This record gives sequence, C-alpha cells and structure tokens, in this order.
Amino acid sequence: MKKFNIGILGLGTVGGGTYDILRDNKDIIMERTGVDYAVTRILEINEKAIAAHGVDPAIVTQNVDEILTDPSIDIVVESLGGIEPSSSWMLKALENGKSVVTPNKAAVAANFDKLQKTAKEHGVQIRIEACVGGGIPALTAITEALAGNKFTEVMGILNGTTNYIMTKMGDEGLAYADVLKDAQEKGFAEADPTADVEGIDVANKLSILMALAFGKYVPPTEIPTVGITGVTMDDIAAAKEKGCKIKLIARAAVKEDGSLEYEIKPTEIPYSHPLAGVNYEFNAIYVTGNAVDEVMFYGKGAGALPTGSAIVGDIISIMRSEAK
Amino acid sequence: MKKFNIGILGLGTVGGGTYDILRDNKDIIMERTGVDYAVTRILEINEKAIAAHGVDPAIVTQNVDEILTDPSIDIVVESLGGIEPSSSWMLKALENGKSVVTPNKAAVAANFDKLQKTAKEHGVQIRIEACVGGGIPALTAITEALAGNKFTEVMGILNGTTNYIMTKMGDEGLAYADVLKDAQEKGFAEADPTADVEGIDVANKLSILMALAFGKYVPPTEIPTVGITGVTMDDIAAAKEKGCKIKLIARAAVKEDGSLEYEIKPTEIPYSHPLAGVNYEFNAIYVTGNAVDEVMFYGKGAGALPTGSAIVGDIISIMRSEAK
Repeated sequence: MKKFNIGILGLGTVGGGTYDILRDNKDIIMERTGVDYAVTRILEINEKAIAAHGVDPAIVTQNVDEILTDPSIDIVVESLGGIEPSSSWMLKALENGKSVVTPNKAAVAANFDKLQKTAKEHGVQIRIEACVGGGIPALTAITEALAGNKFTEVMGILNGTTNYIMTKMGDEGLAYADVLKDAQEKGFAEADPTADVEGIDVANKLSILMALAFGKYVPPTEIPTVGITGVTMDDIAAAKEKGCKIKLIARAAVKEDGSLEYEIKPTEIPYSHPLAGVNYEFNAIYVTGNAVDEVMFYGKGAGALPTGSAIVGDIISIMRSEAK
Repeated sequence: MKKFNIGILGLGTVGGGTYDILRDNKDIIMERTGVDYAVTRILEINEKAIAAHGVDPAIVTQNVDEILTDPSIDIVVESLGGIEPSSSWMLKALENGKSVVTPNKAAVAANFDKLQKTAKEHGVQIRIEACVGGGIPALTAITEALAGNKFTEVMGILNGTTNYIMTKMGDEGLAYADVLKDAQEKGFAEADPTADVEGIDVANKLSILMALAFGKYVPPTEIPTVGITGVTMDDIAAAKEKGCKIKLIARAAVKEDGSLEYEIKPTEIPYSHPLAGVNYEFNAIYVTGNAVDEVMFYGKGAGALPTGSAIVGDIISIMRSEAK
C-alpha cells in the first residue's frame, strides 16, 4: 500500500482542523483511497496549539525548510495565511516536487499564474478548493464535473461575516454596529473587520473563481469593490418594499462581445432567488453554464472543520492520482 | 495529443444532449483537458433524431456489438434507459476494456455492485454522475471533494416532476390532477407518471446515493417508499399553518447504533430550511458530514443539456485520468 507523507505549515484554525480530520477520519479515508498516509512534520511555534491537537512534539519544527526541502514529504498544506512568506514557501515546495494544498485565498489570488505555472513545470499539483466557500466543493465542481460547460455567469455570497451582518440587519432589524460587535463576540468577525466588510476578502475569492471558470486572471485589486459599511436601514427597507434582500454579491459574467464584466457590491436579490435563502454565516456559489444551466452550491464558508474538509478532499485527490 | 473515441448508445433526449455538448463545447473541452476526442459510433434507429443532431449517417449503427466490442472505442455512453438490455451492454463494454458513462439510474441501482466490480476487474471506470440530480455534480462531490467526511445524513429532492407538482399545489393552490396535466403538456411529466409520482425513480436515486455516501447498497425495492398521490390540499394547508412546505424527500441517515435508516415520503420542510427554497422542476441534494457540516447542491435534475453536462463531465474525468 502506497504511503504519503504530509507536512503542515501552521496549526491554526484551519491547519488544526485539517490535522483533526486526517486523524479522526483516517479509517474511512484509507478505505476510500486505498492508500496510507501520515502527517510527518508540522511548522508551528504555538505550544498550546500543539498540545490541544495532541501532536507528537517530535514532528514539530520551527524551520520551514525541514518541510519544503525534505524529500520524504509528498504533500504540503500551507495554512499560515498572508501573501508572504506563504507564496514563496508554496513556490519552494512545488519546485521541490511536492504538491501543495492551501486555503490561502490572498496568496493564491495574488500569485495565481505563477503558482499554477510552477506546479505544471514540476509535474505536481496545487489544489485550492478551500480558498473559496470554505467546505463547499464549488471549485472542484467548476474545474471537473462541470468542465464540459462554457460558463456565462458566476455569482456568490463569499464572505460569512458580511452575510451574517446583512442577515441580522435585514431579518432582525439590528443596527450595523451592534451586529458587528455580536459577530466579533461569536468569532464570525475579526477584531479588525476591514478585509471582510470592505469586500477585500471577497475580491480575492472572485479573482480565483474567474480564473477557474473563465480562464481569465484579474488581480483582486482591479475588481471594482464596494463593501457593506455604506448599507443603511433605509436601503434595506427600500429593498424589502421591492421583495428583495440586500446581499454582498460578487458577480462576473460574459458580455455579448465575449469580454468579462465583474464587480462586488451590495445587491438587491429577490426573495424568489435561491441566493436570498443563504443566510447568516452560510456562503453560496451560483454558476450558470451553457449546458448545466443554473446550479448552486451552499454551505459553511469558514471554520476549522468545513475548511479542513476541503483541504482533506484536495489531499485525497492528490493521493488518488499519484497512487495510480 | 491523445485522442479518445466515444460510442453513444441511444440518441434520445440525454444522448442527444450529450452529443450536442461534445460538439458545441469541443474547443473549451480540448483546451481544459489537453486531449482530443470524437464520437465515432452511435447506436440509434430513429432517423429523425440522427438528422436533428446533424449526425453523419456513416457513424450510425443498429448493431450494438459494433460499439461494445470495437477495440478503437475507449468510452461508451449508455443513454438508452431501462434495466435491460442496458445493464448487460454496460457489462459487456466494461469487459471489453471500455469505460462507461451512464445516466441510467434504474440499471445502476439494480446492478450497482456488479457494475462497480466488473469495472474494477477490467481496470476501467464506470461513472454515474448523471444518475442523480441531472446536471448537479453531487455524486462527484460526495465521492471526491467531500471524501474526507464521514457522512451522517443525506436528504434530497430528487425528482423534478413531483417537485413541480408539489410546488404548484402548495404555492398556487392548484389541484393534483390539473397540475399533472399541465406538467405532462410542458414535458416535465411522462404520459404514464407512475414511476415519478409513486417515488420509484427517487428510490433508484436514493439507492445510489446511499451506496456512495455510506458504502452500503440497498436495492431500491427495499427502500420504504410513499409517493405524492396521497397528498391532499388539507395536508398542504396544515403544513402551511406550521410554517412548512410539503416536499417529496428521500432521506438516509446513520443511527446511533451505526446502522442506516432510510425512506422516501412527503415530508414537512420548514420555510427556513434551504430545501424549502427548491421549487418547480429543480432538484437538490443536502448532505451532512462530520467535517463539512451541512452542504447543499441545487440545480436542474433533468433535461437534455443539464444531464448531458454531467455525462460530459464524467467523460472529461475519464479522459484526464487515462491521458496521464
């Protein structure tokens, strides 16, 4: 039985969730894939995290090269976040013949082409399902099961924090500041919520979605983006009068001349549209293709285990294809 | 560039849709896969269908062995329907070293283990995404992107005809007989609607879902099944009082003792549940796993192009894995 060795960069929320799934679901993963695996090295400095996940301290390192250049490691999970040094480290892992799995949308959106090209040149894979929609397997669907389609439109509710805030404001009539505070207390919003509420996180995700669905890379900084901080209770009431909810929608569509239009902004969505039923911290990706017509993927867009589910799915995909 | 030859058994609605997608989207499919392909033989007797899809009559045969035993054919699409002779023909194709793609839920549900075993023995694939939920890529998600999960529950609205009828009765207050007639006129319901309205079609699909999600095969005839013919306007009104819609729900879940419970029946679904927003001819599959938590897949469960989209996705998957 072929055995794969996995290295994890960062045992934070997502890295920790990934580690837990690989340990707790190992029986069924081995049964389904017919391969064996082990997490053989973890880059982490936080001793509390190491203890909390029951990790053998002997596999913990604070020298990233013990993962990036160790020939015994087949797959690297990059779960540190931030554009650098994560991007450089992912490139180094790929150059050393390791496949990479990452939930790091900022790094992937900033360096999409370079990461893809480097993986290809070295005959390995970079898999990024966890970058968009957390546990929702939308990227795999777009690039694999729906790959027979010419896509015409992609719309998404791609950020749980803002969707939680818009839902609380719209359905419960609460004020923005109160909801934000509640979301921060519940762990749905960061202490500094700028990247979420100003749409920066969503722009990273839309950049990745466009690259995969339309084969066109647009840097996130070039996507017209309006966050939710300007949405007033009057706007919400006016939308309600028209039978609509306001959602922070990322949208890209093919225009008649074949070019792409794309933007992120608070948008009125009719109650009858499936995206109107996507509430609180849930995310959804709504895709239109010339064969499948409309299809929607719904689920938890963040969290240790949902995001870890996507990472483990990518690890399984790599193990299956390399075990052949 | 590797070239794959495809044979299609039956140029009906789904076979015809598959042929059209393979022709019309060939540019993007070749770009995405890096392989070439051609439909080199079609089993069909209906000359109108052959002409309607612009098929070269030279590739049409009425002798199925010219597809099943022709060594030049790599992939067989079985789109005839019915348990026999489709099952025997799929087995013969697999035994002759061809991968098989099929939307034929009745044949797959009746012979699940035998088809899987035969494919494995001969080192080829049988892919069945189109059997459940038409164009919705739920089966691929369950077996690939979500393969790191232990699944605890699967629920689905798996039949467009019955969902159309329940939506019209519930949302528009129309009587069963009137809606059925309307659905038949619009092509959403068969002249003999028994397999749909009595839940037989759904039982085939739940049998397949359970085999993939839980690794347990239950023949469709052993799934407790109640269709929609007994649902009255009084039932619908009583559900509405409770804030619910009635939907024909297929459900399977893991019980505390580890065994499975499963049934198909008209079920009250609260308005707040995402499945309540799945209306008219749309389908959805709602899956709970121990890592991803809740995830839902929504789209068109039938039709030439949506179902063809799933078949072409499976063909692409086979071509990619065999081109390596």
